[in-house]
Amino acid sequence: MFRRSALLAALATPSLLPAARAQVPAAVPDAVAQAPGLYRFKVGSFLVTMVHDGYARRPVEGLVRNAPVEEVRAVLAESFLPTTHYDGVYTVPFIRAGSHLLAFDCGTGGQMSATAGQLQANMRAAGIRPEDVTHVVQTHFHADHINGLTTAQNVAFFPNAEVVVPETEWAWWSDTGNETRTPEGQRAHFANAARRFGPYASRIRRLAAGAEVVPGIRAVAAYGHTPGHTLFHVADGNQQLLVLADTTHRPELFVRRPDYQSLFEFDAPMAAATRRRVLDQVATDRMQVAGYHFPFPATGFIGRDGNSLRYVPASWNSTV
Amino acid sequence: MFRRSALLAALATPSLLPAARAQVPAAVPDAVAQAPGLYRFKVGSFLVTMVHDGYARRPVEGLVRNAPVEEVRAVLAESFLPTTHYDGVYTVPFIRAGSHLLAFDCGTGGQMSATAGQLQANMRAAGIRPEDVTHVVQTHFHADHINGLTTAQNVAFFPNAEVVVPETEWAWWSDTGNETRTPEGQRAHFANAARRFGPYASRIRRLAAGAEVVPGIRAVAAYGHTPGHTLFHVADGNQQLLVLADTTHRPELFVRRPDYQSLFEFDAPMAAATRRRVLDQVATDRMQVAGYHFPFPATGFIGRDGNSLRYVPASWNSTV
Repeated sequence: MFRRSALLAALATPSLLPAARAQVPAAVPDAVAQAPGLYRFKVGSFLVTMVHDGYARRPVEGLVRNAPVEEVRAVLAESFLPTTHYDGVYTVPFIRAGSHLLAFDCGTGGQMSATAGQLQANMRAAGIRPEDVTHVVQTHFHADHINGLTTAQNVAFFPNAEVVVPETEWAWWSDTGNETRTPEGQRAHFANAARRFGPYASRIRRLAAGAEVVPGIRAVAAYGHTPGHTLFHVADGNQQLLVLADTTHRPELFVRRPDYQSLFEFDAPMAAATRRRVLDQVATDRMQVAGYHFPFPATGFIGRDGNSLRYVPASWNSTV
Repeated sequence: MFRRSALLAALATPSLLPAARAQVPAAVPDAVAQAPGLYRFKVGSFLVTMVHDGYARRPVEGLVRNAPVEEVRAVLAESFLPTTHYDGVYTVPFIRAGSHLLAFDCGTGGQMSATAGQLQANMRAAGIRPEDVTHVVQTHFHADHINGLTTAQNVAFFPNAEVVVPETEWAWWSDTGNETRTPEGQRAHFANAARRFGPYASRIRRLAAGAEVVPGIRAVAAYGHTPGHTLFHVADGNQQLLVLADTTHRPELFVRRPDYQSLFEFDAPMAAATRRRVLDQVATDRMQVAGYHFPFPATGFIGRDGNSLRYVPASWNSTV
């Protein structure tokens, strides 16, 4: 009844491309704004708003300590990511829980790379004012997670927020006696943490592993990425979310290859063991996760794929 | 040096949840607006804006003609989709190509389900005015692809657009002599197509398979889903995109199981053969695709996964 398509062959005729290119004027301006980096969903009655802060580009070389760079490039290519560079992306989950409004980490503050620092503009687009944030919850003290606490002049960006910190993380970075036991590349975090937390000195709460930030949101120790790296388990009604923080960097690489050790890690073998354990648990429980370095909107699930694991982004929903 | 986390066990203590629930007031209003359904990227100098129209919910039962419903539910669950219902989502690619602005299909017009019809609001958010659209390119004549041509009163929504239609599709649905050779469930498309194209009668262009809509954008026959179902190959510079239209419905189901025959298809075996061929080609060529029923933002790649295929969403990028 129908002619079979004989024209898919056209897909394989790149000789058509130069002619097409020549006829089309380049009328589109180089800089076009992306849609705001916002995404909302519910966990029970809690409203989660994922707010993007942008990205920092770095070479693939040196990213993974324990695999050849060509193997790393091949894993990136499996997910159709560029193999010439690696974009580390940042997304902050904000959670409205009753009268509380919590931020989980707070971005780069626009002080780390030209392509990051979009958090403030995206917060405005989301209708989230800095003065409305009641808690900034830090998962750990790496600069890309805490620099957003203060401006370049070190003025507090969140005028009314309590800053909640894992007590183990605080204990490490607040004691310069630990410097010699800290990898050389991470020693700058002692001074940076002191500087960023300074303006909040009177309103810092140290939280024990297992303790609640607010009802329904609980700290879960996941040490290794840093000495006190901490996840947050969010539960309301019959729904749950695990804020994975830096359990993995981009999942296309470190969920697919959980034993890869990234250069960002304080104690790489412990971080890898923690990663294996956490990923196995959320895969078993089919629990929704949010990952700070996951591709925007940075929420989804860890699926099993034979003996390996795979990040499955949550399906975008126009109904919150 | 560090205590091992003993507290992940907290993840497995649902007994904590009721207490948490009781303490948190349900202060969040039920209806919270999602961020606009917009996403922009480039194909060479062409600017693509993916604009979401919403979704229609239907039962899983009856969706796939040639597989047991429990098997279909299991495939949905592999992608962490609901198994109690199936949300058919709609996203329209707009492409600015030089002085042209093309829409590929045009949504439900807000006349098919209460949860769809968001295209106009999202176009406004994107700065795309109906009067600026120079071409509405129809991949086929199913109602969810053409109803957006006109309002409920059947007034043209795109006052200045040429409507470009595949000539094979036009030939079928414009000849009511074909009614008896059309599945009973699809016979309403004869009258609906006549009605929707009516206000555009003086500005319809019938396009042969293989012909160009505008330089760089070419029709590719992919018959089966409907008699003249047509893809569009977009190329500029050294970049390409294939507008997949309804080659598959949601990829979590029909890319994972390309032999599944959906109830939407006119000639299901031919549609399945076309699907196999097209998916195999874009997987081999690693060509970016846009899928009308893919989860927003509805663009990505078809990856190989052993002997099977998998949809890999493109990584969201804050830089267009």
